[in-house]
This record gives sequence, C-alpha cells and structure tokens, in this order.
Amino acid sequence: MIIGKVIGNVVATKKDERLVGHKLLIIQPLDLDNSLMDKAPRVAVDIVGAGMGETVLVAEGSSARLALDISDIPIDAAVVGIVDTMEVKGQ
Amino acid sequence: MIIGKVIGNVVATKKDERLVGHKLLIIQPLDLDNSLMDKAPRVAVDIVGAGMGETVLVAEGSSARLALDISDIPIDAAVVGIVDTMEVKGQ
Amino acid sequence: MIIGKVIGNVVATKKDERLVGHKLLIIQPLDLDNSLMDKAPRVAVDIVGAGMGETVLVAEGSSARLALDISDIPIDAAVVGIVDTMEVKGQ
Amino acid sequence: MIIGKVIGNVVATKKDERLVGHKLLIIQPLDLDNSLMDKAPRVAVDIVGAGMGETVLVAEGSSARLALDISDIPIDAAVVGIVDTMEVKGQ
Amino acid sequence: MIIGKVIGNVVATKKDERLVGHKLLIIQPLDLDNSLMDKAPRVAVDIVGAGMGETVLVAEGSSARLALDISDIPIDAAVVGIVDTMEVKGQ
Repeated sequence: MIIGKVIGNVVATKKDERLVGHKLLIIQPLDLDNSLMDKAPRVAVDIVGAGMGETVLVAEGSSARLALDISDIPIDAAVVGIVDTMEVKGQ
Repeated sequence: MIIGKVIGNVVATKKDERLVGHKLLIIQPLDLDNSLMDKAPRVAVDIVGAGMGETVLVAEGSSARLALDISDIPIDAAVVGIVDTMEVKGQ
Repeated sequence: MIIGKVIGNVVATKKDERLVGHKLLIIQPLDLDNSLMDKAPRVAVDIVGAGMGETVLVAEGSSARLALDISDIPIDAAVVGIVDTMEVKGQ
Repeated sequence: MIIGKVIGNVVATKKDERLVGHKLLIIQPLDLDNSLMDKAPRVAVDIVGAGMGETVLVAEGSSARLALDISDIPIDAAVVGIVDTMEVKGQ
Repeated sequence: MIIGKVIGNVVATKKDERLVGHKLLIIQPLDLDNSLMDKAPRVAVDIVGAGMGETVLVAEGSSARLALDISDIPIDAAVVGIVDTMEVKGQ
C-alpha cells in the first residue's frame, strides 16, 4: 500500500454506474517526512470514512476491488485504512 | 484511478478484433494544478462518451477490463468517469 | 495501453516453452511529439504482425495474456494494435 | 520482488477488518549499494516476522495476497522473505 | 517483459515456504545501449537456469506466477528467457 494524504475529492456525474454512491477521494502520495511527493495524484474509493487532510493507506490494482463488496467494480485504488501514527526510525 | 485530460485519439486498422468498435482515447495524466504531467500518455478505451479536452478518470490494469462487457478484451486502461469538478484543499 | 515504437527484436533460445514461436519485439515508449521516451524498453509479444519502426499499442499486465490464445503464458506485454494515425490537440 | 529496508510501522485503528491483526511495515526500496532510494515508501503486511532495520523481499500486486491465507484481503504488498546476504557482482 | 542483467543473487533463510528451492536472482534493468538503468533492482525467480552477467527477460506481475508450476506462489517477477541477441535499429 502507499501512504497518502487526502487532499480533495472528485465529482463525476457521468461515470460507470457501479461507481455511483462511492466517494472518490484525491490522494497525494507522502514521503517519510510527511511531505507530498511530486507524483501523479490518485483517485481512490473510500471504504473507511476518511476525511480531508487525513493520512491514509491506499491499496492499488486488483486488491482495490476486494475492498468493496462489488467484485466487478472497475476501480484500481481504494482507501483501506486511516493512519493514526507512523513510527519511522533507522533511516 | 488517475486523473487525465483527453488530448487526442488513435486510429488503428490492424488490431486485436475485440478492440474493433471501441474508441481509443489518448489521455495525458494531470497534476493538482490541472497541468499535463511529463509522463507517458495512456491510450484508454472510452465507455462514458468523453470528449476532447475533458478531464477524466482512468482505471488501469485488470480493472479496466471490468469497465467493458467483454471480460477477455486485452486492454489495460479505460475511461470510467468524466470529472465535473475537483475540490482540492489542504496541500 | 502505452504508445511505443518497434525498435528491435529479441532472440532467446533458452526460454519458457510457451514462448516458443512467438515474436518478441523491443518497444520504446513514445511521447506526444513522437519522440522516444527515456524509459525502460519493453519486450512484447506481437499478435498483429507489427514491423520494425511502426508505432504500436502495447497492453501490459494480465491483459497481455488475453491477447494470445494461451491463457497461462507467462508474458506481461503484448502488441495489440498498429497505429495508423494519432490525432492530438488541446495540449 | 523489490528489496527494501524495514524503517517503521503504521498504526491504523480504522481499517478494513481483514487487515486487523496484521503487522503493517513501512518499507523503503534499496538500491544495489544498500542505500535507501528516493521512491515512495511501501506499506506491506509482514508474514515472516521481519524486524526494524532488516532487509526484506516485498512481493507486490495480486501476488501479495497469496502470501496470506486470506485470499480476499485488500492488500497489494507483503514481506515474503528476510534477506540474509546479497551477492552482487558484474555491475 | 523488461530486459535486465543478472547481477547477483539473494540468500533468504526466513521466507515464505513456497519460495524454498527457488533461485532468487537480482536483476538490474538495461537500456538500449546495454547499460544498467538507474532503477530499483528486481529480485526474480529463475526458471531457465540464467547465470551471473547474462541478459534476461523478466515477466512481472501475475504473469510471473505462471512461469512456475505452483500457481499460488507469492512472487511478482520471474526470469522467463535468456537473451542471445538483441537486434536494435531505427532509434
């Protein structure tokens, strides 16, 4: 999983119908200093009720679909956890 | 999913027959400032009727196939939504 | 899919037996100006008869296997189309 | 698999319930000189009892799920081995 | 597949038991000039008897598992061929 920060959300009226009712969060990957990385933002479906500004764990690829109960949903990223604390040492 | 801008389309006469009849859009990934990123463009199958210049959500990998009704189609990217608005804060 | 240029081919005598008889093309990813990108070259199995110097569409990951009739072939990239024209605007 | 160093761990109270009870390690990819690479850190589920500072092998994508006995767990990275020695030559 | 050079091997005593008995090679991606690229090294399971210094084809993702006879092995990279010659032109 990558560690990211919830920095926004996306509104998309015209979309695959299986996406209807799912919150689409914009996540920016974080580095070890808790800084936003210069990488492409991800849009992930939220299953844990993550809020703006929170640090989250994002599962990507086929694993993202398992986070939802709809196995045929065409998504490739899901927020699977909200990070309370990160303990980093030994860098 | 990544956020991208539809910047073109591809014509390919010689192709896997399961791709026939599907619109192949060229998508360039966008950053949070809505600028085109310096990354490889993606070619994605369109299922939502996205037009040139529109901002879209692209699902990649095996999830892209789920966006179509043909489960054995050899594609790895599909446009699954058209972005109306992006609300970004807390950067 | 990514857009790439066929720039060579690979000869490998010692290989997984399911790869025998398949043409292995070296593909370099292209940017929107049709220039070779500074990225790792891909080796992809050809199913459409692509020739040296042609611009092609490459499907990656599990989707590549679907391009062939052998579902258990251990490949992660396949040429699924030859690009006739790319129409790019709105950059 | 990538080679990485265990540099921390993540505490996440609110998470997908299938993640409960699994140790979530923060792994930083290593280069051939055993230096931390300037890449996004990964969070991986540990199945081998890896400790802080150890060099490990991380399997990513759908393969990560196979490392656990729960096939529908929404994870995309797992520590599958602890590296004792790396023999590198011919650079 | 990517093209890489076998530059070493990994010894890991503590590992997923399905990895026991498999040779774990360290592969560095190569560019078109046969130079090692500045990318993260991969650890791949060898199925073709590749030796130190050889140029090989590495299949990644779920395709890597197909290279072995154990479909549930948690690996994401396998050496599927040894490159005899690469013919590159039209750059």
